[in-house]
Amino acid sequence: MKKVSEPTIGRLSLYLRMLSGLMESGVRTVSSEELASRSGTTAAQVRKDLSLFGTFGKRGLGYSVPGLETRLRSILGLSRRWSVALVGAGRIGAALFGYESLRRQGFCIDAVFDVDPAKVGERWNDLEIHSDACLEPVLAERGIEIAVLAVPASAAQGMADRLVAAGVRAILNFAPTRLDVPPSVVVKSVDMAAEMERLSYALVRGTDASGAV
Amino acid sequence: MKKVSEPTIGRLSLYLRMLSGLMESGVRTVSSEELASRSGTTAAQVRKDLSLFGTFGKRGLGYSVPGLETRLRSILGLSRRWSVALVGAGRIGAALFGYESLRRQGFCIDAVFDVDPAKVGERWNDLEIHSDACLEPVLAERGIEIAVLAVPASAAQGMADRLVAAGVRAILNFAPTRLDVPPSVVVKSVDMAAEMERLSYALVRGTDASGAV
Repeated sequence: MKKVSEPTIGRLSLYLRMLSGLMESGVRTVSSEELASRSGTTAAQVRKDLSLFGTFGKRGLGYSVPGLETRLRSILGLSRRWSVALVGAGRIGAALFGYESLRRQGFCIDAVFDVDPAKVGERWNDLEIHSDACLEPVLAERGIEIAVLAVPASAAQGMADRLVAAGVRAILNFAPTRLDVPPSVVVKSVDMAAEMERLSYALVRGTDASGAV
Repeated sequence: MKKVSEPTIGRLSLYLRMLSGLMESGVRTVSSEELASRSGTTAAQVRKDLSLFGTFGKRGLGYSVPGLETRLRSILGLSRRWSVALVGAGRIGAALFGYESLRRQGFCIDAVFDVDPAKVGERWNDLEIHSDACLEPVLAERGIEIAVLAVPASAAQGMADRLVAAGVRAILNFAPTRLDVPPSVVVKSVDMAAEMERLSYALVRGTDASGAV
């Protein structure tokens, strides 16, 4: 299979979200033009993105909404359940924990950790917040594969090292720092300060940086 | 000036964060090699990125940390104060509001809005949460230029339209939906579900998607 670019994966997420919305509205077929106009791209781009993964849709008939939704879920790795650990029970952690659509996509937070003794033992829904001292045994016991790292920058690399050593294969990093991990581990970072700086850069430079998703 | 790519702007943010850390540690000069190793890139890339904005550093002497820090802050639009409105006082909004480093970079949340009558009138620090009914007059009165949109997807486009009509020039969008705005308005989106889907995609496809910042 051809290597799929990062922007393509982002568009697949967008198409999937639209298809889920169409499903809820009872719409059964959709054209590449409709998918394109709702995702700010072109029909040709939609067809090209989807063609990377095989043949979908019939000329003149469009795509089957449930068929394409199922296929995209499978492509994006969403046709299974993922056990996720939340490392850092601060405000970002709480926001993620309450994010219902993550659960619907199969990302289930099965463990929460914090270093703050005042937080350890607290319960978020049915989940007890564990001390980071218990990180390794709890990760192993619950078969955690993905970690959300929402700790201060100064603690992030140390915690990432422990997560990787404990077998975590993917990390979503909210700490405003770069993580060094082995090539077999996937890291994506959400850096809110950097996103704000992209805005201020565009405002002072007057460059057209709009439309990025 | 040459058009500067999105990844370049991201690296400038990263360099700036490192320089700020070095400043705090009292370090006065830094080489492109050091900046590169701390930001997961090459010395040549560091020099190329910085050369877009003029001449920095002296061969063999490296860069002046305070000099380069000041210059990068200016390039990224951080040598001034930005008035920011937070639209949506939920958990994501609360996390952003408590994010001290945004304030340090000059992004000051000067207004908070929510549609929930139970939240309106509540105070976050010294800031009263306003009803969205007061959006336009409060934005105008406080000279808001940037909005952080942390509302449900279904409400996002309508709110974005009102923000743009009220003169907001840049939006950081946390709603998991694409926003249609005029080309003069800058939008950046933080889509946590899409980032998680990039992780699951990489895990099921086994592609090497690590190292992205």
